[in-house]
Parts: sequence; structure tokens; C-alpha cells
Amino acid sequence: MKIGMFTANFLDRDLESVFKIMAEKGYEAAELPAFYGNSHLDIEEVLKGNNAKKIRNLAKEYDITISALSNHPEGQLVLGPHTKDTDSLFKGAPEEKIKFGMDRMKLTARAAAALEVPVVCGFIGCEKFSRWFPWPYPQGWDEMEEDFVTRWGEILDVFEEEGVRFAHEPHPNEFVYNIETAVQSVALMGERKEWGFNFDPANIILQGIDPVIFIQELGDRIYHCHAKDGEIVEHNVRRSGLQPTGKWDRIDRGFRFRIPGWGSVPWKRVLTEFMLVGYDYVLSYEHEDVVMSREDGLEKTISFLKPLIIKGKYIGRGDKLFE
Amino acid sequence: MKIGMFTANFLDRDLESVFKIMAEKGYEAAELPAFYGNSHLDIEEVLKGNNAKKIRNLAKEYDITISALSNHPEGQLVLGPHTKDTDSLFKGAPEEKIKFGMDRMKLTARAAAALEVPVVCGFIGCEKFSRWFPWPYPQGWDEMEEDFVTRWGEILDVFEEEGVRFAHEPHPNEFVYNIETAVQSVALMGERKEWGFNFDPANIILQGIDPVIFIQELGDRIYHCHAKDGEIVEHNVRRSGLQPTGKWDRIDRGFRFRIPGWGSVPWKRVLTEFMLVGYDYVLSYEHEDVVMSREDGLEKTISFLKPLIIKGKYIGRGDKLFE
Amino acid sequence: MKIGMFTANFLDRDLESVFKIMAEKGYEAAELPAFYGNSHLDIEEVLKGNNAKKIRNLAKEYDITISALSNHPEGQLVLGPHTKDTDSLFKGAPEEKIKFGMDRMKLTARAAAALEVPVVCGFIGCEKFSRWFPWPYPQGWDEMEEDFVTRWGEILDVFEEEGVRFAHEPHPNEFVYNIETAVQSVALMGERKEWGFNFDPANIILQGIDPVIFIQELGDRIYHCHAKDGEIVEHNVRRSGLQPTGKWDRIDRGFRFRIPGWGSVPWKRVLTEFMLVGYDYVLSYEHEDVVMSREDGLEKTISFLKPLIIKGKYIGRGDKLFE
Amino acid sequence: MKIGMFTANFLDRDLESVFKIMAEKGYEAAELPAFYGNSHLDIEEVLKGNNAKKIRNLAKEYDITISALSNHPEGQLVLGPHTKDTDSLFKGAPEEKIKFGMDRMKLTARAAAALEVPVVCGFIGCEKFSRWFPWPYPQGWDEMEEDFVTRWGEILDVFEEEGVRFAHEPHPNEFVYNIETAVQSVALMGERKEWGFNFDPANIILQGIDPVIFIQELGDRIYHCHAKDGEIVEHNVRRSGLQPTGKWDRIDRGFRFRIPGWGSVPWKRVLTEFMLVGYDYVLSYEHEDVVMSREDGLEKTISFLKPLIIKGKYIGRGDKLFE
Amino acid sequence: MKIGMFTANFLDRDLESVFKIMAEKGYEAAELPAFYGNSHLDIEEVLKGNNAKKIRNLAKEYDITISALSNHPEGQLVLGPHTKDTDSLFKGAPEEKIKFGMDRMKLTARAAAALEVPVVCGFIGCEKFSRWFPWPYPQGWDEMEEDFVTRWGEILDVFEEEGVRFAHEPHPNEFVYNIETAVQSVALMGERKEWGFNFDPANIILQGIDPVIFIQELGDRIYHCHAKDGEIVEHNVRRSGLQPTGKWDRIDRGFRFRIPGWGSVPWKRVLTEFMLVGYDYVLSYEHEDVVMSREDGLEKTISFLKPLIIKGKYIGRGDKLFE
Amino acid sequence: MKIGMFTANFLDRDLESVFKIMAEKGYEAAELPAFYGNSHLDIEEVLKGNNAKKIRNLAKEYDITISALSNHPEGQLVLGPHTKDTDSLFKGAPEEKIKFGMDRMKLTARAAAALEVPVVCGFIGCEKFSRWFPWPYPQGWDEMEEDFVTRWGEILDVFEEEGVRFAHEPHPNEFVYNIETAVQSVALMGERKEWGFNFDPANIILQGIDPVIFIQELGDRIYHCHAKDGEIVEHNVRRSGLQPTGKWDRIDRGFRFRIPGWGSVPWKRVLTEFMLVGYDYVLSYEHEDVVMSREDGLEKTISFLKPLIIKGKYIGRGDKLFE
Repeated sequence: MKIGMFTANFLDRDLESVFKIMAEKGYEAAELPAFYGNSHLDIEEVLKGNNAKKIRNLAKEYDITISALSNHPEGQLVLGPHTKDTDSLFKGAPEEKIKFGMDRMKLTARAAAALEVPVVCGFIGCEKFSRWFPWPYPQGWDEMEEDFVTRWGEILDVFEEEGVRFAHEPHPNEFVYNIETAVQSVALMGERKEWGFNFDPANIILQGIDPVIFIQELGDRIYHCHAKDGEIVEHNVRRSGLQPTGKWDRIDRGFRFRIPGWGSVPWKRVLTEFMLVGYDYVLSYEHEDVVMSREDGLEKTISFLKPLIIKGKYIGRGDKLFE
Repeated sequence: MKIGMFTANFLDRDLESVFKIMAEKGYEAAELPAFYGNSHLDIEEVLKGNNAKKIRNLAKEYDITISALSNHPEGQLVLGPHTKDTDSLFKGAPEEKIKFGMDRMKLTARAAAALEVPVVCGFIGCEKFSRWFPWPYPQGWDEMEEDFVTRWGEILDVFEEEGVRFAHEPHPNEFVYNIETAVQSVALMGERKEWGFNFDPANIILQGIDPVIFIQELGDRIYHCHAKDGEIVEHNVRRSGLQPTGKWDRIDRGFRFRIPGWGSVPWKRVLTEFMLVGYDYVLSYEHEDVVMSREDGLEKTISFLKPLIIKGKYIGRGDKLFE
Repeated sequence: MKIGMFTANFLDRDLESVFKIMAEKGYEAAELPAFYGNSHLDIEEVLKGNNAKKIRNLAKEYDITISALSNHPEGQLVLGPHTKDTDSLFKGAPEEKIKFGMDRMKLTARAAAALEVPVVCGFIGCEKFSRWFPWPYPQGWDEMEEDFVTRWGEILDVFEEEGVRFAHEPHPNEFVYNIETAVQSVALMGERKEWGFNFDPANIILQGIDPVIFIQELGDRIYHCHAKDGEIVEHNVRRSGLQPTGKWDRIDRGFRFRIPGWGSVPWKRVLTEFMLVGYDYVLSYEHEDVVMSREDGLEKTISFLKPLIIKGKYIGRGDKLFE
Repeated sequence: MKIGMFTANFLDRDLESVFKIMAEKGYEAAELPAFYGNSHLDIEEVLKGNNAKKIRNLAKEYDITISALSNHPEGQLVLGPHTKDTDSLFKGAPEEKIKFGMDRMKLTARAAAALEVPVVCGFIGCEKFSRWFPWPYPQGWDEMEEDFVTRWGEILDVFEEEGVRFAHEPHPNEFVYNIETAVQSVALMGERKEWGFNFDPANIILQGIDPVIFIQELGDRIYHCHAKDGEIVEHNVRRSGLQPTGKWDRIDRGFRFRIPGWGSVPWKRVLTEFMLVGYDYVLSYEHEDVVMSREDGLEKTISFLKPLIIKGKYIGRGDKLFE
Repeated sequence: MKIGMFTANFLDRDLESVFKIMAEKGYEAAELPAFYGNSHLDIEEVLKGNNAKKIRNLAKEYDITISALSNHPEGQLVLGPHTKDTDSLFKGAPEEKIKFGMDRMKLTARAAAALEVPVVCGFIGCEKFSRWFPWPYPQGWDEMEEDFVTRWGEILDVFEEEGVRFAHEPHPNEFVYNIETAVQSVALMGERKEWGFNFDPANIILQGIDPVIFIQELGDRIYHCHAKDGEIVEHNVRRSGLQPTGKWDRIDRGFRFRIPGWGSVPWKRVLTEFMLVGYDYVLSYEHEDVVMSREDGLEKTISFLKPLIIKGKYIGRGDKLFE
Repeated sequence: MKIGMFTANFLDRDLESVFKIMAEKGYEAAELPAFYGNSHLDIEEVLKGNNAKKIRNLAKEYDITISALSNHPEGQLVLGPHTKDTDSLFKGAPEEKIKFGMDRMKLTARAAAALEVPVVCGFIGCEKFSRWFPWPYPQGWDEMEEDFVTRWGEILDVFEEEGVRFAHEPHPNEFVYNIETAVQSVALMGERKEWGFNFDPANIILQGIDPVIFIQELGDRIYHCHAKDGEIVEHNVRRSGLQPTGKWDRIDRGFRFRIPGWGSVPWKRVLTEFMLVGYDYVLSYEHEDVVMSREDGLEKTISFLKPLIIKGKYIGRGDKLFE
């Protein structure tokens, strides 16, 4: 298992200097952003053929594997919402947003292939997430299945062509956001292998769900993993709850994202279950901890996770005392 | 404290037979539905002057106080959503939905006055409830404040005129859904007394919030209370979570509504806190328990709650041993 | 759902006086012992044709349904243990014990048919229960499958002939003792309908298992239910554990059986799950509470359980507010 | 086991009217106050010989047993504090307070004998309770042992003479306040049988102690029991703690006394343990619940406790199935 | 945030050798004792002008900041108790104790100024701590407010003059011992900035209080912090409780002090809240762990705390994915 | 306290290479297997006089203390079971198994003496462990006492002769398996000092017992300790329970053994209690963790435990602030 980082943590620095600091701290893998206009990776340039080799070489120079490309914002556009909520991602009419999102996700798949990166992480979007609650439109959630299957099916065809897998990150405001919808999505996609998950345990515990059960049920569909934690803030949660509005850094929030080891995710249980289901790819650190700086997170995350990595599966000890 | 019932539990029976069965079982108060087309109360008829006296007399005959009129569906239309999600409540363009909702809520206030009922319960609606989560539009929640203040301010002016109070029920898919937004809403409404809450503890615990803290902080704004419970389903919640989609009666849900005493609401603590803040009006039974019939709920609810009613506040015992 | 009693609670009184006291206290069903030499029911007499009608009439006189015959001791003999541990049940060589047990269980099935009783409860036995733990013979548990299938398969053939079902009670010292072995046993028996369970939640919680999950997974195989509770004794369990030896009434035990409501079984959750899976037959009170007398248990059990019985399933309330 | 009441709950009513209301509600025992100037019982009058018979007859008339005399304030004077903290109990120099306290406790013993009441409840006092914490005077607690032994030894000699037992109530501000000091006190008193306890579980849980362990260790020294509950106020305790200062009725206290069933005392476990150790005397209701009126407490206490009384110990069921 | 040590852990060694071992282990700050007769710092000598520079230089030589002077024993004398309980601190009549205590605390402020140390830590004392419980003198606690304001107001005037702050350590046997009394004390002192707290989380959890709430409410008043832990001893607390008497090292205590990481203080939550309120001064290790040696504590404390220090506050990551 | 290893973890490597890797990783003690045919130690050879010195020298060369010989399989044969369950340990009639077991355990004692090893660890066996549960043979457990006393008494006589102690490891399928039977066994053995325990906390928690209480009650009888952890698998245990059958590595087990730090054993509390009772010998790592390889366990165990070792007991700090 490699410990990696989503380089979007430092979009205000150039990619080489990010690789440099990662290598210094011991990170072995990088998840690169693919969305339009980011300062680390321009997928259109990659596809023009100029850039892929250069980036692969840069990574090699720092002994860094590119574990995935990530494109959350443009994936979000595929299913929405198509209101002003996504104008910062792409401004346009709903159909334009959908088209842009779909095109960009296909491009991302092709860029991943060009870079020899086997996985693309991202969001799939959700027209109206509020429909998880049955009132006032109980049939609403199910009705969104159709768009999911049609639009993402078309995108996944390109992934299939390119030999790349898509790893959706279950999260609030996504059509697939918890264990039950993830299980359902695998069925809706006809079990096709291009469809899987970027498992981020912080997004799961904020719903009162045990992330280990996600791994137990969907382990063979986990294609990538975020090393991110979430704190159910003990002294606040009974007043603020798990679904508070408002800024991430207000002191009285009932829930906030944290770096690994500073939240409520049971990491040893997570890593144990990964071992049991055979997931052995990458833990990619994403910084959304509003309590501490990214520099601090960079150090603390690897020094917390490194000693927890299980290196090999038990293969017996060769005596009659314990079999 | 009276134990009452929301008569909408039995919209398939006529109002008198509902009053009859309530009286038999010991219920002393009724919350009547006010939305368009319901079979118990036509507020337009009331306002034509024909009906108010008849209904008051009917209630008196069965020794039943009308604790509130309730109009959740038409209140929902005021802030939305204005998509097809609310077409079953009223079909029309967004502006039409808003206008219909606002007009009906004003009418409801006037009908309450005509019936000498001091409280109207209801929902206020929410254009995009999914915005409680900051991604992808962090400023979204706050932007909805304006419509809340404008539209409901106008409606509350009518309530003020009529000497009636509005009790919003914090709930998923409402702009005011938890303690923090309720506190905020009181400030947004300039502390005006027409604005308060129909406290339904089941809606609160589904967010991981302690309902007693709601009472402690907002006790003087609680104008009505639903006797409804919510079960955090112990053997399901770690897989299904607190925010599952899907039908209320599926066996593996992580949360479901229940009758009082069969869920996770700490009723003795709730009733203790009510005593301490001085709430002494009504506990109005609403049936959304998909495990048992309404007839069963009618009996079990009152036999559970009746012995828990605190009849009088402590006023000393007149000796030096305990002061 | 009927509340019944296992009449073996009072084998020192004659059957009629037991029926009498049951009827006085409100019990509506009786589970009768079938083992050799008990004072309530002699199954050989029944099969001679003399007795069945008389017993049915006696029950009818007191408005009591016979919910099941129960034969734990002779069922135990079928799989063992065949050491002195079962000499008090029947003294003999192992083969003799097996033969006696199998013959008696077949007889019990025939007697049930003669009495028009649809269910026989009992134990199936277990040659070496200590094998649940893999040391020192890890393959041991699985090796016991064969005898289970052969011997009980032969017995169940008679049940099939007679149109009676067998309800095994999962319990320590039985080959089927928890959820996992129960699930396995249904497969081993080829899903045949004669094979099901007498669900006793106290036996389940002593293993650290949530009894509601048993119902969720095996609900359609629950043919009978014991109203018995088990207390995980909070102030003792951290020292004494869940598997203490020794007398049931010593004060420092970590676990003891209790009457319903005085132990750790979550009865409302149990009854809720029964409703959801459709179990609606009987809760049969068995007294193994060493803290209080049987007379006391007889009263307290029904006064605890009666108000918890759910009378009817929710079938909608006929309005658009809650569907 | 009888359910009784400490009549000091109603010192503003005369004794007969208190007996009357007790009898109406089903109470069978009374604990009478013995301190100077109380309106129910003047022990000096009793000892003059005029009054004992009259009071016994009055009690008999209402079918009420006098379970104990109680004298907390004058017992407190024996060990102190002898500062102004006890001036409301008796004003004087320390030696005068001690003398008054000792004399009155001896009188109370004699009055109990005269009334044929076997137990006197009370406090023993404590010069400096703050010494439970070792700073700044670690040897301080142990130094108080001597006065305890000397003064109470002398008092207990009178109890012995009169054939009456003293039941101290462990409580904050008493030299014996928890399990450990209670165990120690029995040794200090040389195991003499006049020395025992009035067990009030509410006083115990406020220290984070499981009251059932008190019963398990000191069961044969429990001579009387208060039916009083204590609420560890879930939503306040993490801020206010278990040792808050200030008025009992402030809304944000971390701990408050309650009537049985409305606090954190595990009554079924308490009653189970009473059965196992053989305590079968009285549960005497004392009202210190600042949330509800005494009238309400009078009703709720007996309706909560009555169904929990265990009437008889298990004495077998006479079969081989369960021994 | 610096990790420091209260040098009183090693009063049996001279100050230089203590600085030496601190520097070797990585400690960067020292809290020096100021009470009369201690072997590390004689404040009278400092004020004679001879010593301040020497001590500052000594500290500088080992790269150690003097975070605070500490004077608990003489602060205790100001409010008491003035009985023999404080004779080991200073022997004399109450007024003499008060005068000595007040004079010494003023001197301590002046010495701190001379040493350029911005904070003095200490206790304020409490005449009768037992009054936290309302019986037998409910008004007692409030009556102690006056002496607090008068005596400590006079002392704080000197602190103001000298530009030094006083940091009281909430603790049993102090007038200010929990969150509620701390909040009250700030008001009683008229919000003057000289009055604040030396936060020792171990003293807080022994009352069942969450120390993080102390920080949340009083963060801007925390002027110093003790790195001390407290163990709510899981296997003892249900018998021994949180307020046991007796020696710190007896094996069956329900509570004992520990070094950081070996008790029940949630350090990550504490450090997170410190970051959110802006406390970034010092964590000063005080050894009161009776299980292990001071040498061991010295090593274990810093190796536990060092990796937990949060170095910088989050200041954004500069992209649209997370704001 | 030394950290050691049971070399049977690597019976597929020769002893010297095991010592070598232990020394490299920092292990200071070895527990050697003594059972027949193991590849590390042939006790018959030792007793022939050839081998003891060589092995002692080999250990010395790697700076390794031999903390104990361990012989679980042959100890098991002494009390059984004597069915095929132990055929892999020794094939023969029951009496042959017993004789072989007893002879080998005596030999082990003699070999330990020859090797100057003060402790032999092992199992004692149990004829029918299923008898911990009273049904169907309540007197069964007690009847096994006799064989325990006779057979093991005879073996312990040899231990006494040789000046070696026997440390039985409480565990399922042993006659002594929990706190209560361990306490009982000490009495049955007449308090003789040869009889004590190899404390393995993982075996204790699987019974719902707090291992710290074992240390508190039996600390002076703990002669050796296994560094092994046990995971009560949170997401499985409510379905699978603490007593599941089946392979150790199936993913849905409710309990499994783990290396220290990856299970549910509270190691800091364990090490604290060891300090308080004076146990300071060895923590011997035994690998039964089916999630990770032995190589990984070897590293992770010592890096987890090493920093937790308490080096010295508190012996005061020499000032009046804390005594």
C-alpha cells in the first residue's frame, strides 16, 4: 500500500515543487487534478501529445507513481445540480453544463490512458440531493436513476475503450452517497468493471455509517482511497448535529473534516478490512482540515499512517498450535 | 399539558367520528388540517362564516380543544422546492406555487382566528435543501435567507393582524430544520412573537441532535408539540445511516418514524425540560409509524404518555431539610 | 400475537390447575412438555388414542390454545453429548441414547399431530459443544454436520408425514446455537419447511449477539418464541464474563436468565422486527429467573408484555402528508 | 417490601392528613421526622409517655407501619461542621452543638424504642468534607476517624440499650459518604450491629458510583432505603459536571434529585440485588425533585415502584429442565 | 506551542541540573516554583536585584523560556481554609495566614516582572469547599464571593501595576474549580485582564466535565496550561467513584492523576480547540502520576505530546474544490 | 519489563535465525516451545545433558533471556479432551494420552531447570469444556475438579522439586479459563507457589471480561505474559457474537486474535496495573493475527509496546505540593 497525496492540496504551488516536498516527506504516489484550468495538469495538452511523457518523467524523477487523475467539478456537472450552484464550475444552460461535464469526463479518461494512469476519481453529481428524504416527493430519488444510467453509461463506454476505471467518491450531494446507493449503482451499471469507488471514509461517517461495512460489502469495487478523516465533534454534535450549515471553521460545528488520526474514522479497522478484501493500492491524502495548515497535515498524515500500513497477509506459521 | 392528536391521521374518516374515537381514548385536544381539499376542515368555508361555530361546537361536544390548525403542504410551497417535487401539492409555475402557498397560509391564519385557535403549524419550505452541505455552492444556504424573510415576513404580518402565531416544524427539506437555523430564524424575523416552532423531537434526532437542547435554547418559542418518535434503528444504522433513501417501511432502514415510546426520543427528559421552560400546552400525536396500525398507535400513545405528564411544578416542601 | 406459557414452569402442579391460573392471569396459549415422565402430558397415552381429545377439551375450557409440544431433553439425546452429562435424561450406551432420543422425537411429532398442535419445540443436542473454539481440533465442528443431517433428517421425515414443524431452540450446548449456525442448518436441511426455530432471545444475547438480527435474517423460520429474558449483569460482567460456570443464583454471576423486562433483551425492537417479518404466533413465557418466584413472574411477565403487543400492521393513513 | 414515605415531604400539613393521603395512594409505611420543632413528631412528648400510643394508633388506623424515625439535622451536629453552616440547625459554640446533637440522637433512639420502631435514620455529620481531596491536608480525612468512633460509639451504646439500630445515610458532607467509607465505618465500629445504613441510591450515583455495588458489598448493613432518584442531566453534565454549586432548580445543572424512575438509578437492578441479599423492608419515598410537585411525586412514585416490587424469591420449579 | 515543565517535579535537584535534563529531552519552557523555601527560586532574592539576571541567563543557556512562576501554596492561604489544613503551608492565626498569602502573591507578581515572566500560576484557596453541596448551608457558596473579590482584587491591582497576569488553576478545594465558577469569577472580577486561568484538564475531568468545553467558553482567559492527565479508572470507578478519599497510589482508586496520554483527557480534542481559540503558549508537564517515575514521565510526556502539536492554522488551499 | 517472543511463531525457521531476527528488532527474551517434535527445542536432548549449555550460549550470544519453556499441546492431554480432538497432539487411548501428557510435562519441568528457565507455560486441558454451561449436567464442572487436583498436583510436585513454576494460560477449552476459575484453582492447589498463570489478555476479553481485573485479583500469580491482542470485531459482533465457529480468517467473524495494538485490549491500563501489582518480567509476543504476516507483526508489536513500557515506579518528588 502506498501513501499518496492529492496534489490539489497545493494548487498555489507548481507541480514540481509539490512533487519535491512529497518526496521529502516520504509520499510515493500522486493523485493529479484534471479539471479545467488547474495549475497542475492540463488534460488537453496531454492529449495533444506534448505533455504526457514530460509529466511521467517528472513523477519518475521523484519516484512518485501517479495513482489517479481526479475530476470532481466536471463530474458534478453531469448530473447536476444545474442551477447557479454549479456556475462556478461552468456557467451555462443545464444542457450546456451536462455536455461540458460529459465531454470533459471522457477527455479525462483519455488523458489518464495517455498518462498510463489506471483510475479516474470524481463526483457524478446529483440533480436534487434533498430527495433522499421522502417528503415532499417520495418517488423523486428513484426517478434520478435513469439519467445516471444514461449519461454515465455513455461516459463509461469511453473508459472501457481506454482501459481506465472510474472511481466515484460517495459524498453528500452525489446521487451515490452511501453504502445502499453504492450497492444499487453497481447493479444499475450492470456490474461493469469500469464503475467503482474512490473510498473516502470521512464522507461516510458524517452519515452515521460505519465505513468498514462499506469495505466489507463493496471491497472489490474500491479502486482508490482518500486518506481523509472526519471529526464528529463530541462537545458540539448534540447541539449542532451531523448536518449543520455554515462555514467549515466555525468553532461550534457538529462535524468537520480532519487529517487522518484527528477524527472519528477507525483507521486500524479500515486498514484491517482493506487487507481482508485485498485492497492494496493507495491512501491519498486530501487536506480539508480547517484546524491546521497543509504543511502540518503533510507531516502528520504520513507519520500517522505509515506505521499502520500492513505489509503482508498472514500465510500461516507452520505449526500445530495455531492453524 | 393536554394530549391531543393531529386528525390528519384519519383523513379517511369524517371529523366527528375522529373526535368520537379520540374522546373514547382520552384525547383532549385536536390539531386540524387546513390544506386544500382535506376532508376535515375547509378553511374557505370557515371564512365564509358558515362553519366556524359548527366546528367549535362539535369539538366542545366531545370536550376537545382545537390546539392548532396545520398546513404543511401549502407552507412548503412558499419557499419551495418549486420543481415537480411539489406538483402533488399544487401544480404550476414557481411564481404560481409561491403565490398559492402565501395566499393559503394567510387564509389559514384568518381561519384560525375565526375558529379562536391561537396557533397554526406548518412547514416553510426550502428551495434547495441540499445546500446545507457546502459543496458545490458554499454561499447557497445564506442566500436563501432573503426569500425566507420577505415571503414569510409578509405572511406573518397577517398572523399579527389576526392575533395568531405560526409554529414552523423544523424538519428535513425545510429552510429551518435544526437548532442552529431555528436560532438564526428568530433573529432574522426580528424576534417577532408570531414566529415560533412546532417542536417534533423525531425530526431532530434523525440529525444526531439532542432534542432537549432545542427546548433549553428555544423553549419560549415552542408554541406546539408533536408527539412523534423516531427510531435510530440500532441493528441497521451502521450500514444504512441516518440519511437513507427509500420507502419508510423497508426492514433495513437506519431510521424510521415511530409512535412515542418506540423510538429513541428520551421522553422523560423532554417532559422535564418542558416543565423547566414552562411549556404546558399540548402533545399532539401524529402517526407515521410504519410498523403498526393507527388504531394501535392511538391506544399505545396515550397509554405511554399519560402517566408521564407532570401535573405541577415543585413549589417547596416547607422544611429546613430541603430548600 | 398470543401470550402463552410453557407449563413446565409448574410441573409440581397438575395441568388443570396450571390452565386455571393461566386463564386467570390472561394467558391465551400453552406450550406443553412432551418428555418422558412429565406430569402434564404423556405422549404415549395420547397416541393410544385415549387422551388427545380430553386434553384439547381441557384447554378449550380455559380458552387456551396449545401452541406447541416441547421436548428438549429427548431431543438433546439425538446428537448428545452421550456421556454421563445426559444420564439424567436417559441412561444407556451412546447408541441407546440416540435411539431413544430419535424414537421419542418421532413420537412427539405424532402426538402433536394427534393433538392438532402444529409445532414441536426442542433441542437437537451436540456431541462436543466445546468445539466452537478451533483449538485443539479446528475441523471438529464441521465434522458434526453429518450426524445432524442424518439423524435429524430421519426425524424430520416423520414431521413431514405428520404435517408438524420442528422448532429447534438455539442455545449453548446445541449444534445450532447462534445466527450463523442457524443459517447454515437451514442450508444443510435443504431448506425443508419442517426445520425452523423456537426463538429465545435470552439464549442469543448471552453470546453478545443482537437478537433482532436473528429475526431479520431468519424471520420466516421462526415457528415459536420463548418470552424469556437474560441479564448481562452490569456490575458483574466485567469480572465474571458471559461464560461463567456455576449456580444460576450466585450473586456475582455475569449473566443470568430473567423474566421479560428484567434483563437486557430489547423487547420493543424484538416485537417491531417480528411485525416487519410477519411473525404473529405466540410469546411463551418460560421461568428461569432465579431472583423471583414463578407466581411473581407469571404476573409480571404478562403485565410487561401485554401493552407491547402490536395489534396491526400499518396500512396507510390515506393522505398526501405521509405515504 | 413495603412502599413508604418520609412524612417530612409534607411538614406543612398535620400528620393525620399526611397519613390519610398516603393511605389513599397505597403507601404502607411512614418514616417520621424526629428533629426538634418539626410538626409531625415531638420526641420529648413521646418520652414523657403521653404520645407514643396515640401515634401508634393513628398509624394503625391508616394501616401504616412506622418504618423509621429520621433525624438528619441533629445527627449532622455530632461531627459538624460546627461553623455557621449548621447555625440554622442549632446555634451555639462547637461543643454545644456536639452536645445538643448527641443528646438529641440518644433521645431519638429512646423515642424509637418507645414507639416500637426498630430503626433511626440520619446523618452523622463531617467536620471538613473538603478533606476527601488530599490537597492541602492529606492526613485530614483519617484524623476525623477518632471523633466518629468516640462520639457515635457513645450514641450507639444507647441504641444498643434500646434495641434500636441506626441507619446512616451516605451523602455528601458526611464522614461516611460512599462505599469505601461505609465499609471502613463498619470496621471502625467493630462490626457492631447497631451501625448500618439508610441506602439512598441518588446520593451514590452523584459520585459516579454504581449503587448496586453498594448493595452487593453492604447488603446486610442496609436497614432502611430511600426511594429517591438522581438525574445525571445528560445535556448539562459535560459542562456543569457532577459537583455544581447553586440552586437545585436551575435549568443547566449537571445533577439534580428526582423521584424514582425519572433519574439515572437502575431500579430493576437495585431491586434485584435487594432480593439477592435479602433486603425486604421498605422503600421510603423522599421528595427532592424540583421539577414536579409533591402531589405528583406521591402518585408517580408508587405507580412506578409498585409493579417492580419482587414478591417472592425463586424456590425452584420442580423439574429436570432447569435447576 | 512550546512543551515545558513545572520544575517542582524535581525539587530534590538543583535548578541547573533540571534545566539540563529538560534541554536534553527537548523541553523548551520552564514553570518555576515561587513559594517560600523552595530550592529552585527565591523570589525575595530576585527582588533584591541579585538574582533575576542570573536566572534568566541560566535559562537562556539551555534555550529555555520561563513560561510562568507558580505559587499554589501561598495563594491557597488567601481564601483558606484557615484551619490546621494549611498549617504545613504557613502556621498562624487565620488573619496571619491571609496576610502572609496576600503579601507573598504580590511579591510573586513583582518577581515575575523582574524576571520578565508574563504569568503567575497558582491557587486562590477556598474557606469551605464542602459548600459546593447545598446541604446544610445553601447560601454558603455565594457568601464566599465577597472575600474572593476583596482579597484577590487587591492582589490583582499589584499584578496590573507590574504588567503580569494571574492564572488560577481550577481544582478541588478552590473557590473557582469548574467551568461555571470560572465564568462567574470573570464577571466578579469585572472582566479585568489580569484574571485568567492555568488550565489543567485533569482537574476538570475528575468532576465528570468535558475539558474541551472549558476551552470553548473561556479560551481567551487561558493564560497557561498544565500537561497533566487524569485517569477515570474504568475497573474501579463504579465502586470507588470520582471522589474517593485516601492515598493516591492505592490500587483500587476510582480516579488518579497520570502523565499525558495515560489518562482520560482527550488530548487531540484539547489541542484542536486550543488552535481554534488561539491558545498557543505552553503545555507545562506536571508529574503527579503515582504509577511511574518522574524520569519515565519526562520522556513519555514529550514523546506523546510533541507529535500532537499543531504548528499552524489552516489558511486555505487556494482552489475551488474546498473553501 | 522485557519484550520477548514465543519462537513458535517461526517453527519453519531454525532457532538461531529466529534469535537473529529477534535481536535485530530489539526483542530481549524468548519463550521456547517444548512439545514433542518441534524444531526449536528437544527437551529429551536437553535432559541427556548435551544441549542445555549450547542453547543457553546461543541465547547469550544474541543477548536474549529465555523467559519460559512452553508446552501447550502436551499439557492439554492431561485433562483432555481425550477424544479424537487431541489425536493430532498424541494418538492413543485416554489413559495413554494422560500418561504421555503427564510425563512430558514433568520432563518439561526438568528441562526448564536444566536450562535455568524459571517458568513453564502451558495448557492444563479440560475433559468437557461445554460444561461451563449448566445444561444438561449442572454438576459437571465441579466434578472435573478432582482430576485437576490429582493429575496436576502430581506434576507440580516435580516442578517443586526442580524449583520451576508452572504458568497455565487461561483460555477456552481449559478447565481454568477465566478469573473465577483461576481464583478457584489457586485455592484447589492449596496456594502452592508452583501454580500460577501465563496471562494472555486476548483470551480474557473474548469472554466479555476486563483483563485488568484479572491482574488486580491475581497479580501475584502472574508468572508470564503473552503480548497478544484480541479484536471484538465491531461491525461483525452483533451478528456473529463472541463465540462463532469457523476459520479464524473469515471476514465476518465477531472475534479474532490480533497483534498488540490492533485489538480491544486496553494496553495502557494493563501495563499500569502490572506496575501496581509489581509484575515486571516479560511480554512475550505470540502471533495469531490472521490479517497480517509474522514479519509485519514482529515489527509492529515491538514498536507499539516499547514506548509503553513503564520503566520505574513513582517514588515521590520531594515537595509539599504533591505527596
